[in-house]
Amino acid sequence: MKNGRFTLPAEAGMEKETLELAEKWGADAIRDSDGTVLSPEITELDFDILSTLCMIRADQDWNRSHKHHCQQKYLMSDPRTAEADTLVIDLMSGYSKDQFELDTVNDAKKYWDVIDRTTGEVVDPSKWSLSAADGTVTITGASPWHVYTVNFLVFQIWESTSMYNHITNNWTSPHQLGIDPYQPETRAHLLEYLDKWLDEHPNTDIVRFTSVAYQFPIVKNEALETRWQDWCSYRDCISAKALDDFEKKKGYRLRSEDLVDAGYYNATDRLPTKAYRDWVDFVNEFTTDFAREWVEKVHARGKKAVMFFCDHWIGTEPYGERFESMGFDGLVNPVINGTELRRMSDAPTSISKEVRFYPYFFPVNLVGEPLFVGEGGDPVRECKEYWAKARRAMLRKGVDRIGYGGYLNLAVKFPEFLDSVEVVANEFRQILDHADKGAAYAMPGKVVIVTAWGKLRSWMIGEDWPSGGFLEALSGLQVDVHFMSFDELKKDGLPEDTSVLINYGKARSSWSGGTYWTDPKVVETVRAFIAGGGGFFGVCEPTAIEHQGRLLQLEDVLGVWRSTPSNVRSNNVITGKRPSQHFITADVNGTVDLGELAGVTYAANPEVEVLSTKGDNITLAANRFGKGRSVYMAGFTLSIDNIRLVQRALYWAAGKDKEFTRWNTSNPATECAAFVEAGYCAVTNQSADAQKTTLYDGDGNGQEISLDPYEMKWVKI
Amino acid sequence: MKNGRFTLPAEAGMEKETLELAEKWGADAIRDSDGTVLSPEITELDFDILSTLCMIRADQDWNRSHKHHCQQKYLMSDPRTAEADTLVIDLMSGYSKDQFELDTVNDAKKYWDVIDRTTGEVVDPSKWSLSAADGTVTITGASPWHVYTVNFLVFQIWESTSMYNHITNNWTSPHQLGIDPYQPETRAHLLEYLDKWLDEHPNTDIVRFTSVAYQFPIVKNEALETRWQDWCSYRDCISAKALDDFEKKKGYRLRSEDLVDAGYYNATDRLPTKAYRDWVDFVNEFTTDFAREWVEKVHARGKKAVMFFCDHWIGTEPYGERFESMGFDGLVNPVINGTELRRMSDAPTSISKEVRFYPYFFPVNLVGEPLFVGEGGDPVRECKEYWAKARRAMLRKGVDRIGYGGYLNLAVKFPEFLDSVEVVANEFRQILDHADKGAAYAMPGKVVIVTAWGKLRSWMIGEDWPSGGFLEALSGLQVDVHFMSFDELKKDGLPEDTSVLINYGKARSSWSGGTYWTDPKVVETVRAFIAGGGGFFGVCEPTAIEHQGRLLQLEDVLGVWRSTPSNVRSNNVITGKRPSQHFITADVNGTVDLGELAGVTYAANPEVEVLSTKGDNITLAANRFGKGRSVYMAGFTLSIDNIRLVQRALYWAAGKDKEFTRWNTSNPATECAAFVEAGYCAVTNQSADAQKTTLYDGDGNGQEISLDPYEMKWVKI
Repeated sequence: MKNGRFTLPAEAGMEKETLELAEKWGADAIRDSDGTVLSPEITELDFDILSTLCMIRADQDWNRSHKHHCQQKYLMSDPRTAEADTLVIDLMSGYSKDQFELDTVNDAKKYWDVIDRTTGEVVDPSKWSLSAADGTVTITGASPWHVYTVNFLVFQIWESTSMYNHITNNWTSPHQLGIDPYQPETRAHLLEYLDKWLDEHPNTDIVRFTSVAYQFPIVKNEALETRWQDWCSYRDCISAKALDDFEKKKGYRLRSEDLVDAGYYNATDRLPTKAYRDWVDFVNEFTTDFAREWVEKVHARGKKAVMFFCDHWIGTEPYGERFESMGFDGLVNPVINGTELRRMSDAPTSISKEVRFYPYFFPVNLVGEPLFVGEGGDPVRECKEYWAKARRAMLRKGVDRIGYGGYLNLAVKFPEFLDSVEVVANEFRQILDHADKGAAYAMPGKVVIVTAWGKLRSWMIGEDWPSGGFLEALSGLQVDVHFMSFDELKKDGLPEDTSVLINYGKARSSWSGGTYWTDPKVVETVRAFIAGGGGFFGVCEPTAIEHQGRLLQLEDVLGVWRSTPSNVRSNNVITGKRPSQHFITADVNGTVDLGELAGVTYAANPEVEVLSTKGDNITLAANRFGKGRSVYMAGFTLSIDNIRLVQRALYWAAGKDKEFTRWNTSNPATECAAFVEAGYCAVTNQSADAQKTTLYDGDGNGQEISLDPYEMKWVKI
Repeated sequence: MKNGRFTLPAEAGMEKETLELAEKWGADAIRDSDGTVLSPEITELDFDILSTLCMIRADQDWNRSHKHHCQQKYLMSDPRTAEADTLVIDLMSGYSKDQFELDTVNDAKKYWDVIDRTTGEVVDPSKWSLSAADGTVTITGASPWHVYTVNFLVFQIWESTSMYNHITNNWTSPHQLGIDPYQPETRAHLLEYLDKWLDEHPNTDIVRFTSVAYQFPIVKNEALETRWQDWCSYRDCISAKALDDFEKKKGYRLRSEDLVDAGYYNATDRLPTKAYRDWVDFVNEFTTDFAREWVEKVHARGKKAVMFFCDHWIGTEPYGERFESMGFDGLVNPVINGTELRRMSDAPTSISKEVRFYPYFFPVNLVGEPLFVGEGGDPVRECKEYWAKARRAMLRKGVDRIGYGGYLNLAVKFPEFLDSVEVVANEFRQILDHADKGAAYAMPGKVVIVTAWGKLRSWMIGEDWPSGGFLEALSGLQVDVHFMSFDELKKDGLPEDTSVLINYGKARSSWSGGTYWTDPKVVETVRAFIAGGGGFFGVCEPTAIEHQGRLLQLEDVLGVWRSTPSNVRSNNVITGKRPSQHFITADVNGTVDLGELAGVTYAANPEVEVLSTKGDNITLAANRFGKGRSVYMAGFTLSIDNIRLVQRALYWAAGKDKEFTRWNTSNPATECAAFVEAGYCAVTNQSADAQKTTLYDGDGNGQEISLDPYEMKWVKI
């Protein structure tokens, strides 16, 4: 056996192959996948056996007999226009009755609201009535031609993962229900169930919980199409009891509208309200309370407990303050790209972290195309591509273990794929060996991304999944990325050693910051930082909120202004400088393509250096502000060229352009990670083509390196 | 002589050609252009002699010796960021010192404001001081890293038309000043001047005033580039005295910020505030007061007075209630397209209206390319193209007279051009002859465009000039267009015989209506109208303002919803119907191109008929609401195909699709106007190619017609 750190999916009836692959890939743990019963031949060997357990789904008999302990959520009925003073609203119209059942148990008048969406007013409860039998609300005394919606509670009677498998993989087994441990009787039952389960799994060394109680929400219509989905939303963790307890704990009652939010449901891209933040905190507290009890039981048996950082992760908050109090021994997650790798590796906990890579050993790939079964699948290519993305992030900050999931019987038919996984496993272990002695060289100083959410949503900015966008670029660059909230920035200012502050995202979003940019304290802090020599990097619609005659609040810093319908009579008369060459665009070959752009941007001062335009629209600009520097980038789409642009923009903004040839490569399709303490530098090829590159050492001396497609070479330094 | 209605630009030294062309074109009036002194040979003939007079520019000696009676305006100094607690702002930085002189006469502390643009607060006047000598304001006690601007008054020391001629035509004569008749001493002087001028112009039959007192604003930077321009803005009609009088009249004082408006200066595209509306009304009242005195003097000499509807037209408001009280005998204006023709012809006054067509007999055309002088000019083509645009509008609603401007000596070198003008003159007179007996057939019912400005800004929606956009399409269609304000709609509802209500423009603009769409009375009125059988036509961002979970407030009517950063987690699950053919798109050949689009639009209900898409984005949709119909169009760019789309959309929305072949043509490149009372129908070719078309009569019977490029044929009916 090699040196481990690898979890293998075992398969009954494949004992021989399991052992062979364990040897080939250096596996030291075996994953007892859902539905797989491992044979004694395997379980009696010296592998750690990892068994998965989804507590809220585990005891379907209990769940079925306690349907009203199922998880609840608020739905907003589709808007309906009153044509007269009576309006009947079919609540569930547009929603899946497979997924949801109307809550006719809890008092509708207490928990629901009917809202006049024309005026925004809550309709007096005396003016509407619920017909539980036919699932309608009748409003009397409606204002004709006003639009009405009902915020109502449902029970989710089809657990989301079960639903996903039925829809995606055409499962036909009975729908599973998910139960809410917030209900005391169910909470007690689950503890008993866990005892029984542990009794029945003596060979299990590690219990992998999937995950705790609350799924990220997926809302389906009658045709089981997804209407709404948000990986970070606290929308699926509601119960009438929790709403009542919230009032006791926080001193005020949430209105349905605090959670329905006019149908936006506090999407993570929205600036979070105080009520929603309080709700997140409340759910986090009670979720970590159950989970702690479960982990204690596992520990009492001498086993380890690890948590899956996906599916029912809501309420656990690996970046939150209560996470470690649950006592988990590890965190495990599938990882599709560098962003997701960093989401795991940067989580502020010292417990073991394991990631599961793509492709899963499934018949089809992520987008439903043939993979291990059918014409045209290329698992080798997928393996290399996914690993290349994760690897560059891993080189910046690694996790402790890796693994794969799925069915071994599919994988073994592709010997070349088995070799690719061996490469991944070995490269991973090489990285860890070197990184153990000290992290890879990074540009000095912190690169801070400020968002409304701050570190709680580190590496969770919603971008194009699965390819990723701006965060994906950052995930593997040799910079030290930190997430910070605007509230922290207001309270504590920026960290002393900040080199560049990044503001990224669409106008008015939680990512870009919206109204935070009208807060004097925010702009004072940021301007003072830059004027004092700091760097600023604004991407997409940085600092954007229309206020006092401007959309980009840091127009002076960015050196550009953005047109709005209000200033359409203002012409662009300032050209800015148009340098024929610039440090930031030194590697640009042809034109800069930043994808879809919002609005049109012009020079705000004659000194701004305009580095790229699309028609009249400035798409890339460099500006100086006091002793500091700022870079503006009008959008972002992931490409090797744009990753290099980001890298150069950060170095330039930080005033470190002179240091760009310290531990770097000349060819943008290649990257490097210098583990100076270990005495080795990894040079990687991020492309499917062979590449030549110059590796610059810590003194800027270059050496030529040739790399095969996706190859990683270790250079002794 | 033919039957007149034509004004010829005369030229000294070209007496023979003047007379020949007067005969050829049927001229009955001679225009005494600026700078041209007509010879007795001409003035003694039986032509009406029209002489131009710009009162505010006429007596440069007076203007120079009364510089502080020059017109004033507020400028906002370019935003400056305080780096410490003292900030010095160079007021005129970024503004032309040729155009403006700082007002150091009136009390800065009374009329100016220093504003902290970070907080929006007005800085206490004790915290800043003006240094008149060097044109700076020094702020003490500034908040470091806040942005400050100064709203300050200037005198405009270079009259805008004089400035335009210097810049565009490289004039080198002394800069002219414009004087403000609001100053009583100047007002009195101008009356004396007018007496003298009338004494000196005994042969003048018609005095054409250019125009009254206040130019539409053009603001230049140091390089004399245009920073800001708005054809409808009340920004150039300010004086300290007028501001003081406003307070007496309206009962409250305007703050500088009421007019500076954070640097947006109440652009006409902005929703007008009450203060700005009051200012418009106040200026309109005093402007019409001077003008009335001038007209009375002209009338006293037995002459006529006509007003130019451009340049210094601000304050006169041809669509306003005081317009006729000035007593002008006529309105005259250059016209470049159908929109401008309708702006003239629809003005609610019975006085004579004359339009001057392009091309002017100038060396270069509107965009500065060679025209009558130099290589490549094609005055014949330009003549035909401009006339084709104006003609279709003229066929809907005509003016009384036409004319040309410029230098005859240039035109006479192009005999074919002289023939083209003859065609224009004859076609124009034919149209009037038939229209005199009754207007052309139009789709029954009013087509009402609702904007924040209503009829005051009829045919003045700012679109791509000179080509025009959506209004240009409407200007020549056989529909009866009316402009209405949201306030009128709230107060009086829609006219009884409204067939279609149009809402057109960008979100939040005065055109689209912005917050008016959050007013229950507005949406109630509009929904009731449509549900009762009315038509709605929403173009660009109709009813758009984010409110209560939606951007398009009439989502139910339009059948589509528009994505925003707030609902990015909501998926598009409703497809709508995708009919293979539809009345609206029956003439579409290939794809629909509506130009640049804002945002992405999805189906809001399963019944909406999606007629065109661009990727996932719905660009054209038809929906039913109650007994009524609605059409959504995501944008507009002018083309023959898109004009036809608008025509069909209006007929469909009005429920008149069955009547589409009543007085219409089959080929979108052709149009018709049936003067039923006169017994003639005009069939026009709007294209530069020969066309065949079927003309449908009032019973839907077709006849084939062939047309030469841009030809108009009269068919007896």
